[in-house]
Amino acid sequence: MKLASLKHGRDGRLVVVSRDLTRATDAFPIVATLQGALDDWAHYAPRLEALAEQLEHGSVPSFRFHEHDCASPLPRAYQWADGSAYVNHVALVRQARGAEMPQSFWTDPLMYQGGSDSFLGPRDPITLPDEAHGIDFEGEIAVVTDDVPMGVTPDEARGLIRLVMLTNDVSLRNLIPGELGKGFGFFQSKPASAFSPVAVTPDELGDAWAGGKLSRPLLAFLNGQPFGKPNAGTDMTFDFGTLIAHAARTRTLAAGTIVGSGTVSNRDADGGPGLPITEDGLGYVCIAEQRTVETIREGQPKTPFMMFGDTIRLEMKDAKGHSIFGAIDQIVRKHHP
Amino acid sequence: MKLASLKHGRDGRLVVVSRDLTRATDAFPIVATLQGALDDWAHYAPRLEALAEQLEHGSVPSFRFHEHDCASPLPRAYQWADGSAYVNHVALVRQARGAEMPQSFWTDPLMYQGGSDSFLGPRDPITLPDEAHGIDFEGEIAVVTDDVPMGVTPDEARGLIRLVMLTNDVSLRNLIPGELGKGFGFFQSKPASAFSPVAVTPDELGDAWAGGKLSRPLLAFLNGQPFGKPNAGTDMTFDFGTLIAHAARTRTLAAGTIVGSGTVSNRDADGGPGLPITEDGLGYVCIAEQRTVETIREGQPKTPFMMFGDTIRLEMKDAKGHSIFGAIDQIVRKHHP
Repeated sequence: MKLASLKHGRDGRLVVVSRDLTRATDAFPIVATLQGALDDWAHYAPRLEALAEQLEHGSVPSFRFHEHDCASPLPRAYQWADGSAYVNHVALVRQARGAEMPQSFWTDPLMYQGGSDSFLGPRDPITLPDEAHGIDFEGEIAVVTDDVPMGVTPDEARGLIRLVMLTNDVSLRNLIPGELGKGFGFFQSKPASAFSPVAVTPDELGDAWAGGKLSRPLLAFLNGQPFGKPNAGTDMTFDFGTLIAHAARTRTLAAGTIVGSGTVSNRDADGGPGLPITEDGLGYVCIAEQRTVETIREGQPKTPFMMFGDTIRLEMKDAKGHSIFGAIDQIVRKHHP
Repeated sequence: MKLASLKHGRDGRLVVVSRDLTRATDAFPIVATLQGALDDWAHYAPRLEALAEQLEHGSVPSFRFHEHDCASPLPRAYQWADGSAYVNHVALVRQARGAEMPQSFWTDPLMYQGGSDSFLGPRDPITLPDEAHGIDFEGEIAVVTDDVPMGVTPDEARGLIRLVMLTNDVSLRNLIPGELGKGFGFFQSKPASAFSPVAVTPDELGDAWAGGKLSRPLLAFLNGQPFGKPNAGTDMTFDFGTLIAHAARTRTLAAGTIVGSGTVSNRDADGGPGLPITEDGLGYVCIAEQRTVETIREGQPKTPFMMFGDTIRLEMKDAKGHSIFGAIDQIVRKHHP
């Protein structure tokens, strides 16, 4: 089934969305919000599934679904734990600045605690104070979990994934070195993220979902031009089960926890960094990676970070070319206090 | 007014508590949960204040208040942003390992994003998998904010503090170096925190609350023995207004955001590290700091971290000796998956 939260108050208004994203029906008679559904998934999911079937059959009142009416599926969440599962991305960034990557990065996942108190809607502007902060997008896959016990195994964790979404993990590149240098991780360098209009249950993904990975290209368009199309199932060193188990090593995770994959990134066929999309490569789903490849190949980056007025679109299509999650499509705007 | 959340479901049952912490009355006719109250504080706070007055006058039905029935005031929250405002604490820890502290630490606050999906209750056991992780407590002050706009000034931010509490920011010392070395900040090294039974509005603190600081000793008892009593208003380099402004530099903070002070720590009168409480000093509100002082004075630490069965109590008393927030009082237990 496919679920969305239409903009309404702090937590949105939960709707069930048709598979083709054209129609929706209110979930209110069952449960008012997505967090409410996740709080007792075993109770609500079968009822929402039944409503989704009725919607497909046209046997329930429905209305036209507009992606731009959506908040993020969880407009605010109790946890946003973002991994960095495409180690290729990390290795490239390090290579560009001549830093060695510890071998342990291939076996011990990187993960940071992100802010989750107010996510941007998928069509909301990204409002920020300063272009000089180095505004970048990061295209990622994210999952929403049920309650996860402490010490869960990766295999058990895969069975606790309730929903899958896309995310734009907005990053301020020029604030990152200072913050990481302080040792306490990202804070100001990670402003509010946005998620796809629709969150889907893993069964909606068919064969593309296996082993805790989603094997479809993630499509990024910067100012309307194709920028990247790496396959999210390729070069994912840590599957979502492993990421969740990492997060739950010393604590439980409450229902509605969002776990992110980190920036999707594919190696080239020869094992080196992939080519830009303008050179028939798979491109990148963040500007930093393109700049890294430019640095490796040409000695310095040439693609600028985002400016006020720039737009970023992130989307994923199924094998038949239909949008699975709807599109994140955002413009960067200056924040005026 | 003083507010608590009795254990009930995921978000507790909001009660108004008498000033002396002996009696309580249900807030349910006004609003069911503390997060609900914070979501529209301007609407609910006057009504809750009126109920608090009725409770003091005995003009409303009430029941005996037991701290051990409490969840944390926000049993789960949308944001837990923990600062490190007592730079003395950071300087000491660095001194012990012979590392220099950047001068910028005196002007640019350290802050990390903490997990907020499920806090421990103030009397809940701290259940963890392994003593070898170096289990420690950290006594801190925390505030709960209203909605905070991006780019707020410290002065404006001080006016958006709605509640004050104590917290035990449980830390796994032996996991910290590895995680900080990876650059992404704390994750496994910061398991679930606990907060005091009662959260209070700043006006309840009288003269002890000024300039975004709470000037009373924070009392720590390890296994029933006094361990520390530093004054939370002393040596706090960054007041809560400054910490909130730091957090809101590149994003809004949603109502119900919890901002922590970091471990309270006082310098000695001569400017050096304070003495242990057994030597008539003010002691410490985390074991790591006592171990640091031992290392500086004796070449190596001698106080062990917490073992299964150890207890930690954190409390703060007003000028008349009455408990302001109730006590955090927790035993460490082994987690059995």
